[in-house]
Amino acid sequence: MIPGSVTEIRVRYAETDQMGRAHHMAYVAWFELGRTEMMRQNGLSYAQMEKQGIMLPVVRLEVDYLSGLEYEEVVDVHTSVSEVRSRRVTFKYRLVRHDCGATVAEATSVLYCMGRDGRPRRLPEDIRSALAELTNPPPPGA
Amino acid sequence: MIPGSVTEIRVRYAETDQMGRAHHMAYVAWFELGRTEMMRQNGLSYAQMEKQGIMLPVVRLEVDYLSGLEYEEVVDVHTSVSEVRSRRVTFKYRLVRHDCGATVAEATSVLYCMGRDGRPRRLPEDIRSALAELTNPPPPGA
Amino acid sequence: MIPGSVTEIRVRYAETDQMGRAHHMAYVAWFELGRTEMMRQNGLSYAQMEKQGIMLPVVRLEVDYLSGLEYEEVVDVHTSVSEVRSRRVTFKYRLVRHDCGATVAEATSVLYCMGRDGRPRRLPEDIRSALAELTNPPPPGA
Amino acid sequence: MIPGSVTEIRVRYAETDQMGRAHHMAYVAWFELGRTEMMRQNGLSYAQMEKQGIMLPVVRLEVDYLSGLEYEEVVDVHTSVSEVRSRRVTFKYRLVRHDCGATVAEATSVLYCMGRDGRPRRLPEDIRSALAELTNPPPPGA
Repeated sequence: MIPGSVTEIRVRYAETDQMGRAHHMAYVAWFELGRTEMMRQNGLSYAQMEKQGIMLPVVRLEVDYLSGLEYEEVVDVHTSVSEVRSRRVTFKYRLVRHDCGATVAEATSVLYCMGRDGRPRRLPEDIRSALAELTNPPPPGA
Repeated sequence: MIPGSVTEIRVRYAETDQMGRAHHMAYVAWFELGRTEMMRQNGLSYAQMEKQGIMLPVVRLEVDYLSGLEYEEVVDVHTSVSEVRSRRVTFKYRLVRHDCGATVAEATSVLYCMGRDGRPRRLPEDIRSALAELTNPPPPGA
Repeated sequence: MIPGSVTEIRVRYAETDQMGRAHHMAYVAWFELGRTEMMRQNGLSYAQMEKQGIMLPVVRLEVDYLSGLEYEEVVDVHTSVSEVRSRRVTFKYRLVRHDCGATVAEATSVLYCMGRDGRPRRLPEDIRSALAELTNPPPPGA
Repeated sequence: MIPGSVTEIRVRYAETDQMGRAHHMAYVAWFELGRTEMMRQNGLSYAQMEKQGIMLPVVRLEVDYLSGLEYEEVVDVHTSVSEVRSRRVTFKYRLVRHDCGATVAEATSVLYCMGRDGRPRRLPEDIRSALAELTNPPPPGA
């Protein structure tokens, strides 16, 4: 069972490179997509947060590319929250081929909380607890 | 003679697609690069303008792609200002291969002046006249 | 009535720029997405065509940006074929806000047919006629 | 002293996001730029290698983002080779502000050697030894 959120993406032509595969940079946008979709589905619109002066820049990124992806392939981005602290939150991602379920990439990103002035700040309590709840998602069907 | 400014770019691997050529989207970033370099070289830092609340979004773009470009090829972006009006400015671009001078693309973009509130506004007089001067560049060597 | 195909996209965070809007370059990828989705829905997989040695690079692009788009906004890309000739095909695009139907951009792109050797070639008859049929889509409900 | 190669980049407008900083995805293209420039400067044109059927996809990427970068900032990408094995090579990157030398990001990427058929293969001996030499660059001035 993969807890968390699932976002489907299809490899765009513009995301391929001359090796005939999705460029490794494109995955970074997909992880972000998985993360922001997960947050929005849980009432944490990132657009809304920024309007309140909460920025969440990525401070660390780790990706393992297990196999290449071709143009038009459909992939599911499985996203979960693995750790929430007072000023930072860690997300995990698993990209799996939609048709066969094979894992094609795994990744982790760490985001820290920053105010509009660029200074670190604590995650507001409501956001922190909403994210913390996502680390232990209720079993499906509960 | 090609008046205006010249910015050299080299096709990045990330800009290629599976056709083995630079993706047509990448050119749009190069035109922007040519335009902003030209402005900076003439004392019109776009970063500075935005801090003063002057935004210049692109409202029209026209590109003719004459031949493909491969990874690692070096191209010169020739940029010039073709028209300045009270609220908009038109730039022209010509991409030429650095080694042989062959034209690979030609483009036009129209930008209009907008305030921080998203509303159209007149170009400030100093910016308008600086851009207008660029429409008739002094002959080289003058 | 807007004939042709509709592809929904949502503005990605990675597609915004510091003006707080989707960068004008991102639209180019969306038009491509609309075009390739339309082709696939009509049995013309571009991935398949390339495997048969048929390349369709963009040779002309024209975009009118009517209003900006913010992060997370949902937009429908309406795509249609406007002209098919022996070696080239012209697509039209209209981007409309999903919620209110307001048009935010209109565009045209011309693609020409090229073989794997980079030389122009005629569109294969089956592809040409399939594209030609799209220029006069049957009325909805027919 | 930072051994290896240095490539200067300037943050493009298209690389910024609505946080007003370079998007974390853009750095991935800069690392690639640093790596391919370093290779070309040492007689290892990646374009040439691909023509010989040697592909080097990225299989692991690790980035630490230490501080944000604004539009127009100039950054030096310091690239070095940290390990060469029979089928893979590891590169290290350090991004430093051109004006003050402050480190803004550090990264590692692992590339593995693949043939045109997508299968792993050993690095050709001449390429392997050329890369290995880069792990112990001669002291400047030697």
